[in-house]
Amino acid sequence: MKIFMMKNRVYNFGAGPAMLPESILLEAQDELLDWNNSGMSVMEIGHRTSEFTALLEHAEKSLRQLLSIPKHYQVLFLGGAARTQFAMIPMNLLHPNEQAAYLVTGIWSQMAYAEVLRLKKAYCVASGESSNFSAIPDFESWDIKKESTYLYYTPNETVNGIRVPFIPEMGEVPLIADMTSCLLSEPIDIERYGLIFAGAQKNIANAGLTLVIIRDDLLARTPKPIVATMMDYQIQTENHSMYATPPVFNCYLAAKMFDWIQKQGGVQVLYERNCAKAQLLYQFLDVSYFYTTPVVPEARSIINVCFSIKNKALEQKFITLAREKGLAALQGHRTIGGLRASLYNAMPIAGVEALVDFMAEFAQDNPL
Amino acid sequence: MKIFMMKNRVYNFGAGPAMLPESILLEAQDELLDWNNSGMSVMEIGHRTSEFTALLEHAEKSLRQLLSIPKHYQVLFLGGAARTQFAMIPMNLLHPNEQAAYLVTGIWSQMAYAEVLRLKKAYCVASGESSNFSAIPDFESWDIKKESTYLYYTPNETVNGIRVPFIPEMGEVPLIADMTSCLLSEPIDIERYGLIFAGAQKNIANAGLTLVIIRDDLLARTPKPIVATMMDYQIQTENHSMYATPPVFNCYLAAKMFDWIQKQGGVQVLYERNCAKAQLLYQFLDVSYFYTTPVVPEARSIINVCFSIKNKALEQKFITLAREKGLAALQGHRTIGGLRASLYNAMPIAGVEALVDFMAEFAQDNPL
Repeated sequence: MKIFMMKNRVYNFGAGPAMLPESILLEAQDELLDWNNSGMSVMEIGHRTSEFTALLEHAEKSLRQLLSIPKHYQVLFLGGAARTQFAMIPMNLLHPNEQAAYLVTGIWSQMAYAEVLRLKKAYCVASGESSNFSAIPDFESWDIKKESTYLYYTPNETVNGIRVPFIPEMGEVPLIADMTSCLLSEPIDIERYGLIFAGAQKNIANAGLTLVIIRDDLLARTPKPIVATMMDYQIQTENHSMYATPPVFNCYLAAKMFDWIQKQGGVQVLYERNCAKAQLLYQFLDVSYFYTTPVVPEARSIINVCFSIKNKALEQKFITLAREKGLAALQGHRTIGGLRASLYNAMPIAGVEALVDFMAEFAQDNPL
Repeated sequence: MKIFMMKNRVYNFGAGPAMLPESILLEAQDELLDWNNSGMSVMEIGHRTSEFTALLEHAEKSLRQLLSIPKHYQVLFLGGAARTQFAMIPMNLLHPNEQAAYLVTGIWSQMAYAEVLRLKKAYCVASGESSNFSAIPDFESWDIKKESTYLYYTPNETVNGIRVPFIPEMGEVPLIADMTSCLLSEPIDIERYGLIFAGAQKNIANAGLTLVIIRDDLLARTPKPIVATMMDYQIQTENHSMYATPPVFNCYLAAKMFDWIQKQGGVQVLYERNCAKAQLLYQFLDVSYFYTTPVVPEARSIINVCFSIKNKALEQKFITLAREKGLAALQGHRTIGGLRASLYNAMPIAGVEALVDFMAEFAQDNPL
């Protein structure tokens, strides 16, 4: 069995915090005590220095290039977890007499919907819960109410390994998308969205940073006074993400990640690689008598591949043995169990090949 | 003039993000691609793995030891900037018919007071604004209203270089303290406080983490539903700071910092060092015909020393020349100008000696 080990490193299939490209970690390591010939770590640099503001401007410029973000969209680098957006979105965009539409396709969109219901008016256009989140409800079946302030959905559900295989056609109703696990893994047409957000710890940087891309007309909706100035998109935009100290080191890694993606050939190239990685694994699963995958083919995530062993009693042994072979973090999310391989941009095809080889060997060695 | 340079490194007098102990950076550098023999960076480790939960538990235990935190106080490691606390505190602790007391002694307490006024009822017990924040109003002069839910204050004001040289005696009224710039730089009696918070980027770790220490009885005050579940102290406590993905790398550095403080001999030893560092600089300033410091002696910060040159036209030259000599980030806060030397735990006495030597030389070479 071929396992390509990078020095002492393992292939990390964790859903997030996830694997980072080794070249980025090596650069960060090299610069950790002396960044940019400053005699300081980037972590020790004041966020209002010309050095750091240049870094953040560079990061934003690179991201705008990678995703062709038009000028009438603002980019925010916010501290903290993406989950804060579950509240910030309705707090900023949903006025007292309005209601928002939520598509529930897995655990994350379910939690975002629960958060909005605590305080504002929202309804569920469709839910995949009856299929145990193994399929996306047909667009034709959605219960879309005429007066919807926005449609919120999660194009890729990290926990359930399912993606929405189309962009909902909602006319003038702005789309709000939680792209935490898929931003930068495939090309997107930004102009189809009103607001996109993504936690950094999958495809962007380390945990503690959330990117928000927001269209100018939505910025104007924030009610005054909003509860908590830190949660006001307008204030954060006016202050260029520096209303408070931003997570400096995360922004630094994000800038490196954007450069790395550019060097790989851009998002389209990574998308093709991601499809090849996912295809390799799903093809293996589809012909297997030993493993199974719950999601219907047309809605399978190319990023988070959920699967299980037909004899579930073997799964713990699988996880342990894989870890010994340098294939880490293959357990499913704690809420649903099973197995999961996350194949973010940083996962090389060699990692997936090694995983498939291991899976074949494990099936051979362990009768069901 | 003696300047002790650590390799290519400089003495960084920035107020935050601030200098970190070199030994911590060296350890982090060494482990950056392979932490704890995991074959992964700590940034790539799932936050719910046994490895990371053990790290966070160790960090909490160390902090509890360093500050003798009693069991009826909870410790939270929250993602994002400390400024979020300006809203979280009233959102969690202040009910509709209640009012809170705020002591305004500098820019940060002034901003916290402005935030509470946007949404809740609060009043100012006393303000140092008329002295341009160069003195703390006498406790006897405070306008304390009988019914105050809590007293909020900022024991050390980073921008203005001023400290409150006593703990306000408020009877049963809980004290809430923003200790962003002073936590772990001097011993404190936790039981005098109801809630303490601190952003990490001064004395704890890199930017993107906020510590909160909160007494159990205050946790019970959170109204339901609170706006934004992420801002609910109770929920964060029940989830052991893992309601969402915490800032993993910052927590890792914080754990190292707590161990480092322990190795130095604890908070009391660092306090004595900090006093010695501050005394060296203030003594020099007090006898100088060239430099001046605005704060009254009894309220001078031991952490952020604000000063200026009697001929302000020389300050830019001072900053530039100091930087060339490896003494970095001596400019005052952008809102008030002047000069400032921040002397957090990580600043060695040699750095302050080098600064004083440089200041003497600069005064000699530049007529007023």
